[in-house]
Amino acid sequence: MKTKGKAHSSNQSRERRNRYDEIIKAALEIFAEKGYTATSIQDVADAVGVLKGSLYHYIDSKEDLLFHIFEDAHVEAEKLMAEVDNLDADPIEKLRFYLEASVRRTLRNLPLQNLYFRDWRHLTGDRRDKLAERRWQYDRYLRSLIVRALEADGLESSMNIRFVSSFVIGGTNWVADWYQPDGPDSDSADEVAHSYAHLAMAAIMGAATFERPAAR
Amino acid sequence: MKTKGKAHSSNQSRERRNRYDEIIKAALEIFAEKGYTATSIQDVADAVGVLKGSLYHYIDSKEDLLFHIFEDAHVEAEKLMAEVDNLDADPIEKLRFYLEASVRRTLRNLPLQNLYFRDWRHLTGDRRDKLAERRWQYDRYLRSLIVRALEADGLESSMNIRFVSSFVIGGTNWVADWYQPDGPDSDSADEVAHSYAHLAMAAIMGAATFERPAAR
Repeated sequence: MKTKGKAHSSNQSRERRNRYDEIIKAALEIFAEKGYTATSIQDVADAVGVLKGSLYHYIDSKEDLLFHIFEDAHVEAEKLMAEVDNLDADPIEKLRFYLEASVRRTLRNLPLQNLYFRDWRHLTGDRRDKLAERRWQYDRYLRSLIVRALEADGLESSMNIRFVSSFVIGGTNWVADWYQPDGPDSDSADEVAHSYAHLAMAAIMGAATFERPAAR
Repeated sequence: MKTKGKAHSSNQSRERRNRYDEIIKAALEIFAEKGYTATSIQDVADAVGVLKGSLYHYIDSKEDLLFHIFEDAHVEAEKLMAEVDNLDADPIEKLRFYLEASVRRTLRNLPLQNLYFRDWRHLTGDRRDKLAERRWQYDRYLRSLIVRALEADGLESSMNIRFVSSFVIGGTNWVADWYQPDGPDSDSADEVAHSYAHLAMAAIMGAATFERPAAR
């Protein structure tokens, strides 16, 4: 009886997890297409093919749904950081690997990226604080990779390191603005990721040659 | 009588222009704060202190208002391009000047920049086409400055030049994401603009040393 009960409950929990994933996926698609503000919980329920009331077994509110979409993305981002930490490579290679993999991840998740940049401001309270903490975490992680890569070349940034990381984050994130996987002159994701990582590395190494302007 | 009439009509047209500017300014502030979708024409009318009906003497619709906000910004962008073209400087200095001035412009117009990136997708039809054409114009202009700056050093980009310009546009635009003019550790706009232009120049010059990866 005990074993049977367990199997039953594990099936239930798997089903619940599958349904939850399905809801997150449908919500991401429809938010990305229509925009968060213009989408109703009813739209999401219709896309999943369930009654609106059933959605509330999985999420508390539309905002909760938006938050969970970003949290799922965060799990992937943490995997990449762990992968980089475990790489058997010097700091410069690690940084380049991280940058290239980040661009690839962006290119694989364009609707998510565009939703994120457009609609993260709709999160409020605790959810917004958690999201801000994630962003800081990414920024801190990138800065630590940058500092170590410069050190490995006997260099250090002669400008505020926050400027360097934010410039690189902005430049690499920008692919989401224009990349069209099925566009007429579609570039391969490999080529784009490799090129962007090269540009980012050049900017980073350039941070060591910065000179403050004379006071004006 | 003729002169008087002219003076009268010129006063009227000046008043009209002032009122129009006031509407655009109020709309920008309120769109930036609440988001375009969540703002009604009534909100804009309340902010300007006029009846909703009066707004329609100046604009056709809420979308028209959004479009005019971006068009006004475009006029400023064109002035900068003309200024750069008329500079008595070599191509590398011209490019650096343009990049630095662009960042300064972004820092002076943070609500506009954030509105733009978040809500430009709400333009439709002709207005959207015109906006897309503006974006291409900026991109083409930057690319031409980049190509000439590399040439001046006897170099050329060994990667797709579109990647270079989009990376630089993304990196420099990103200041709007984090810069807080009155923040606790507020950096001077000069320092930020100078640093970002340096990073962008390093990335651009780095485009000449790019090597395509071996086929995998």
